[in-house]
Amino acid sequence: MVELMKELGDVIVVAPDGPQSGMGHAITIGNTLRLTKTDIYDDVISYKCSGTPADCVKLAKHYVLKDNKPDLVVSGINHGSNTSISVLYSGTMSAAIEAAIEGMPAIGFSLCDYDWDADFNHTREYVLKITRQVLKNGLPRGVALNVNFPPKRNEPPKGMKICRQARAKWEEEFDERYDPNGRRYFWLAGNFVNFDKGEDNDEWAIANNYVSVVPVQFDMTAHHAISVLNKDWDI
Amino acid sequence: MVELMKELGDVIVVAPDGPQSGMGHAITIGNTLRLTKTDIYDDVISYKCSGTPADCVKLAKHYVLKDNKPDLVVSGINHGSNTSISVLYSGTMSAAIEAAIEGMPAIGFSLCDYDWDADFNHTREYVLKITRQVLKNGLPRGVALNVNFPPKRNEPPKGMKICRQARAKWEEEFDERYDPNGRRYFWLAGNFVNFDKGEDNDEWAIANNYVSVVPVQFDMTAHHAISVLNKDWDI
Repeated sequence: MVELMKELGDVIVVAPDGPQSGMGHAITIGNTLRLTKTDIYDDVISYKCSGTPADCVKLAKHYVLKDNKPDLVVSGINHGSNTSISVLYSGTMSAAIEAAIEGMPAIGFSLCDYDWDADFNHTREYVLKITRQVLKNGLPRGVALNVNFPPKRNEPPKGMKICRQARAKWEEEFDERYDPNGRRYFWLAGNFVNFDKGEDNDEWAIANNYVSVVPVQFDMTAHHAISVLNKDWDI
Repeated sequence: MVELMKELGDVIVVAPDGPQSGMGHAITIGNTLRLTKTDIYDDVISYKCSGTPADCVKLAKHYVLKDNKPDLVVSGINHGSNTSISVLYSGTMSAAIEAAIEGMPAIGFSLCDYDWDADFNHTREYVLKITRQVLKNGLPRGVALNVNFPPKRNEPPKGMKICRQARAKWEEEFDERYDPNGRRYFWLAGNFVNFDKGEDNDEWAIANNYVSVVPVQFDMTAHHAISVLNKDWDI
């Protein structure tokens, strides 16, 4: 991602210093944060942060950039899917959403491939294409993009589709074990279950070898339910 | 909350074993989970969980209840506000939203008062009233409720309002310090900034001594932006 963004402009990296899978929109309260300059890149300023992806955006904006807005915030590319309901559990997408809250154009990128040796090369062309579109046209106010790539197949992706979030969920299967002291513990595992029969959602796009682009908002209000509650309830 | 819910039916408690402020919709991946029966209550089955609020709901549903659905899931009452954008950072609300994903009626309750000695007594009547409404009428599919209470004032709350999420954000103010070894660290602090001039949102309700009830959904799609992107973009 750094390599690609360097083709488009000046890049500053602020990234978590370790894995943040399933971190959702967590922020660090009640604990301290570390932010340390790194020398991973010769020609790019970079920091590692002890906090969550959302913390990184907050520190980048307020501390590193001194509240100067960048032209674009990109998050990822995540090694694993963030389609459908996974947008809620995703640290990658929470960083993008945090940036959108701050009024910055933002994109989260994920590859729907959990293989250790996953090939990311087919994403390059689309990362640049999508990023250029956002730099050129901007994004509607309060909207970030959730971009997912199909795994590398024999054929290149067929193109991209603007999608809605598929109606799906993770079905838990806790793996119950006992530690050497005989005390029980669990590993959270699960199967992804797709209830959605539509062809306008991100799961369909990925299954059909398209790049999915879902515009995401941070207004969680179920606006359609307001009138229902006003009618049904004795207030 | 346990006391009040006991008036309405059989109660099972599954709660985090420590503070979960700002935990958002994080789930525990790459680490183990503990679930331990407690004897805090004489007459209520209760468990403490080492994980996040969302983990608690997953473990409660799958392991404790063996996938039998309860009539209702309640989360909280949180000691602090979860109005407006705080819904994204809130562990309380993420537990309710996780339950909604599982198709269970769910309510998150929060008191907008950070005082150590905050008085919760004025919330009792409304917790029961709202809970009874949900048990009686159910909730629209895919919707959970975000209920916030104003702080205790001289006058009782004026009533409740069905609201939308106010347009507001937290403005960071990182408190920069140095540890005994001279290494820098930060505390995340911030001020809440309300941009919303409307009178139909949760911030207005709380400021005007109403109980706010926001229906919340887990479809994050910015549906209005789909046509905008299809029009503007060269796909």
